[in-house]
Amino acid sequence: MADFANRLLEKSRKKNSVLVVGLDPDISKFPGSLLPARPEGEQVQEAIIRFNRMVIDNIAGYAVAVKPQLAFYEVFGSRGIKALEDTVSYARDSGLLVIADAKRNDVGFVSEAYAEAFLGKGPLSADAVTVNPFLGSDGMVPFIEKAAEESRGVFFLVKTSNPSSGEIQDLATDSGRPVYERVAGLINKNLSAYEPGSEGYYFAGAVVGATYPREARLLREMLPQCILLVPGFGAQNADASRLSVYFDREGSGAVVNSSRNIIYSYLSGDRDKEKADEEEASRCIERAAEEARNRLNAIRFG
Amino acid sequence: MADFANRLLEKSRKKNSVLVVGLDPDISKFPGSLLPARPEGEQVQEAIIRFNRMVIDNIAGYAVAVKPQLAFYEVFGSRGIKALEDTVSYARDSGLLVIADAKRNDVGFVSEAYAEAFLGKGPLSADAVTVNPFLGSDGMVPFIEKAAEESRGVFFLVKTSNPSSGEIQDLATDSGRPVYERVAGLINKNLSAYEPGSEGYYFAGAVVGATYPREARLLREMLPQCILLVPGFGAQNADASRLSVYFDREGSGAVVNSSRNIIYSYLSGDRDKEKADEEEASRCIERAAEEARNRLNAIRFG
Repeated sequence: MADFANRLLEKSRKKNSVLVVGLDPDISKFPGSLLPARPEGEQVQEAIIRFNRMVIDNIAGYAVAVKPQLAFYEVFGSRGIKALEDTVSYARDSGLLVIADAKRNDVGFVSEAYAEAFLGKGPLSADAVTVNPFLGSDGMVPFIEKAAEESRGVFFLVKTSNPSSGEIQDLATDSGRPVYERVAGLINKNLSAYEPGSEGYYFAGAVVGATYPREARLLREMLPQCILLVPGFGAQNADASRLSVYFDREGSGAVVNSSRNIIYSYLSGDRDKEKADEEEASRCIERAAEEARNRLNAIRFG
Repeated sequence: MADFANRLLEKSRKKNSVLVVGLDPDISKFPGSLLPARPEGEQVQEAIIRFNRMVIDNIAGYAVAVKPQLAFYEVFGSRGIKALEDTVSYARDSGLLVIADAKRNDVGFVSEAYAEAFLGKGPLSADAVTVNPFLGSDGMVPFIEKAAEESRGVFFLVKTSNPSSGEIQDLATDSGRPVYERVAGLINKNLSAYEPGSEGYYFAGAVVGATYPREARLLREMLPQCILLVPGFGAQNADASRLSVYFDREGSGAVVNSSRNIIYSYLSGDRDKEKADEEEASRCIERAAEEARNRLNAIRFG
């Protein structure tokens, strides 16, 4: 299997897209015809599978990857995880990469188990996983090693998109640099034993929220060989016109996630979810994905 | 349901113990008679359930809680999570509290889903969950709110037990204080709207590794109303004689986790796991739990 960065960038060129679609299933928002009669057990599992397959069918032409958010599956326990297993395999069969947005982290021997879970050979294995760096190198390295071994990817949280991310990540350290820069330094240090892929990018990248373009400009420079995974585009009120700083000079090197603005696009305006059927939802989702892709292309090539 | 801190402290008094036993199932270490013929699917699920039930039966008299480590279940996908669901319910039926060692974290609306998963009414709901604070207050507060609502607990990572935890957590900030102190400050700030339970402790506590007693002494003072969850006792080479600083003056206010030294105690010395049967393993596990409890009692009352 080719290097993860190469696979992602090649897919991006082929589809002329940097769009990642977040798969955050929320059954209270499903079209009426998909709503389970009783929101539990096998009915929920089947509803999530049907919803995600509908989304995947309609975004596959416009997105490079899907990003299932683990929390929305774990909330239903083993049934939710079973639905996720189906989603991972259906997305891959549909020509999409899968980024497991798990934000996992732990001490070394536990991180090894998480890396095996998300980048190994088990039923939840994705193309890449997001990882929290708070525990330092020995919580990060097992993901890097497993990704290298299995030709998968990893994205470390550096500057997250939420309003209070600065409470820890922006703290000025005694070197004068904020915590998020120190995290970027740790990523570079832990990748120094590896070679970037033939396209110039490492298999390990960084999560930098769309809501922080000022920090992104600096991080783009500090991490010239890391693909940026950019959440917060759309729903989290990022200023789209400032997103160009996340890309390299060729308009590449970053992928941008949108979740609710696409997968629940049929709920916007005065539409009523009770009346939304799958056909109408499909049309809305496809149109929203196409629009998001085009908007991002205008930004990076603009 | 009574406040989480009260429940934990009452159980601790009743059992005369501050021991938490980590449930990190590793099928390669299971006694021969529990090893699945094929390490996949339903066989793995059943082997984990049987192993954990055996451990729970033998430690229930000596421990206040079990701490399943999510990674070791996720690695088997929905089958592993199904085994975890059984373990959570079996442990509770055996009079043990369950601390889900998940180290979850995300932006606000996703943290809400994680809080619902681990502290709500679903199949993975535990008595408490561990949470990574790297995203700041809006990733932390949903866990606090859900714990308050459901009389559950949450433990925020403050200073983790692993060797490289200092790379981020010890960074000196411009106020002269390290990041872990700033995290402790965030915990206090986000708890200020709540009252501690009648025993003087909040339902939200802090993870402070047994390997860092110097930092623990300070954190014990900074977080006088937070129960400390202390991993790294035993396997991670903590100096047991220095653990007294984690407790309050009554020898309370902290619980200490041991995982492999107890649940795989039958593998120590020249014992051969192939030959270890469940009966022998049971005896070893019970003895190791009793010894760990007594050792911790000697430290906190010593």
